[in-house]
Amino acid sequence: MIRVAVDAMGGDNAPQAEIAGALQALTSLPERFVIQLVGRSEVITAELAKHPNTDRSRLEIHEAAEVIGMAEKPLAAVRSKRKSSIVVGLGLQKAGESDAFVSAGNTGALLAASTLLLGLHDGVERATVATLFPTSSQPVLVLDGGANVDCSPRELVGFAYLGTVYMRDVLRRPSPTVGLLNVGEEEEKGNAISREAHALLRRSSRLHYIGNIEGRDIVAGHHKYGVVDVVVCDGFVGNVILKFYESVAHLFVNLVKERAPDILGRPEIKDLFRFLDYSEYGGAPLLGVKGISIICHGASTANAIKNAIRVAVQSVEVDLSRHIGAEFAQREAGAPA
Amino acid sequence: MIRVAVDAMGGDNAPQAEIAGALQALTSLPERFVIQLVGRSEVITAELAKHPNTDRSRLEIHEAAEVIGMAEKPLAAVRSKRKSSIVVGLGLQKAGESDAFVSAGNTGALLAASTLLLGLHDGVERATVATLFPTSSQPVLVLDGGANVDCSPRELVGFAYLGTVYMRDVLRRPSPTVGLLNVGEEEEKGNAISREAHALLRRSSRLHYIGNIEGRDIVAGHHKYGVVDVVVCDGFVGNVILKFYESVAHLFVNLVKERAPDILGRPEIKDLFRFLDYSEYGGAPLLGVKGISIICHGASTANAIKNAIRVAVQSVEVDLSRHIGAEFAQREAGAPA
Repeated sequence: MIRVAVDAMGGDNAPQAEIAGALQALTSLPERFVIQLVGRSEVITAELAKHPNTDRSRLEIHEAAEVIGMAEKPLAAVRSKRKSSIVVGLGLQKAGESDAFVSAGNTGALLAASTLLLGLHDGVERATVATLFPTSSQPVLVLDGGANVDCSPRELVGFAYLGTVYMRDVLRRPSPTVGLLNVGEEEEKGNAISREAHALLRRSSRLHYIGNIEGRDIVAGHHKYGVVDVVVCDGFVGNVILKFYESVAHLFVNLVKERAPDILGRPEIKDLFRFLDYSEYGGAPLLGVKGISIICHGASTANAIKNAIRVAVQSVEVDLSRHIGAEFAQREAGAPA
Repeated sequence: MIRVAVDAMGGDNAPQAEIAGALQALTSLPERFVIQLVGRSEVITAELAKHPNTDRSRLEIHEAAEVIGMAEKPLAAVRSKRKSSIVVGLGLQKAGESDAFVSAGNTGALLAASTLLLGLHDGVERATVATLFPTSSQPVLVLDGGANVDCSPRELVGFAYLGTVYMRDVLRRPSPTVGLLNVGEEEEKGNAISREAHALLRRSSRLHYIGNIEGRDIVAGHHKYGVVDVVVCDGFVGNVILKFYESVAHLFVNLVKERAPDILGRPEIKDLFRFLDYSEYGGAPLLGVKGISIICHGASTANAIKNAIRVAVQSVEVDLSRHIGAEFAQREAGAPA
């Protein structure tokens, strides 16, 4: 059985959304995992009492007396709150008592704690938040999504490898294409970092690198290659477009609702709105750490938590972390980068 | 009469879109301007012949034997092709024979030629491309849109002033709010450049600076301030989100068309699609130069050219360039920045 620890205390809607999402996952996903709810036992127990007809055979409660607030300074909070749900949840994984951690709590704290407690695979310079964006066809993975606002060219190349393994192993794309997000396709485009990253990526024979791509290619597909599987950028750009996309999708949906309310009940329109809803895509995996850590939006709904648990289970099943370790070990061993 | 020079040779659909757009402007906008078509006379004359019932009393042709291609290196092309439509068109303005220039040609060449021929206002460090984004209510101005991939904090502050004058004088917003695009609202967020820019902007008493904003605030409005009028960012981020937004709007419109084709004829849906169409917003003014230079999308339609001409006429009418000069002169004279 796969053991997925869920931070019951993190997020704007905790513990309601977290517990409802965990219960939804237990009833609607294949029965190959147990849930470890991490947080204040009495709060969790009280919340579970609102769901009386729940089968608790695959549900554990792990006490964590403290909570790291959404606005706390990440590193200081992780160091001082050893009994917080984030530190306890990741501590279970470090101790071999859990296989994955899912949290909608303080993103910076989750990043810091994951890196400190789980450690990075050899050869990984920085862990990266990988986010899926809906496109006209299959979703595209954009990384970094905000963990690293300044990135060196070498770090961007590292993200390309991390994204490639994730898309290949978890999303089953046989040979994921990688694009570097830039202001134009020509090799002289961009700033010093993107030009050097482009040169390094071109020499990375073990990647399916297609070159510089532009903002329009992220969701519309590249004119030559179609939908790109992995989009590499620094966390500043990634964070801005991620939040921008969410708000634009929301704006569009509201504009249609306002102007054509009568079509909202149609199945194909419901399906379109679902397609534009970030919560369908689950959490964003933190790639590069030795283990599985899934970061959810602070405003996650129960549905988003359920889908993040699905992503966690899949990541464990395909042995994602070991494959990432192996990929970087090969690079470090001197195989052509 | 305001004299608007139009590059008849630039853009992917030249000269058809340029000439059709100029003619649309002449018939549909208030009659307070003349059009100066700049390009190969025989090509222009042949294209005009396709529009036989045109009143040519407000239409001039200015010969320019050369064309700068969309893929040419900007500076080299501007220097070597003195008879290109871009250099000739801007040369008219420099010589006092024209008031504004509109082009859908090579953006880099238009930037370089505008800066070289028109010059920058005292105190302006770099000219910036300002682009309007549709939002749920009034459009927001994002700058820089791609002219400057690397920006110093001081340059970002300059963009804030340029955008403020444009929104105040051309879009008639009485006291435009300015936000700095960042990865979070707190002052310690972002990279070294955005932190320093934030500190400088906070001290700029002549701006209505509201602080750091996030990707979601661009079109959805800031939770405290509502829609922000001016969004400042470097040209790398600005270019990526501009192209991303265009493609997302396009994707969204196509998804609705595909899923609910029967609603396309409804006026409120036509209106929604028009609202999402970049061509309604005209070209992007290049702010900071001594004069008026409007950059259009390479793929501009006749409608986009017409709207860019409208923006050019408005900019001349409100004396935008002189106001920008005055604003920067006040800053330079030691008024609190």
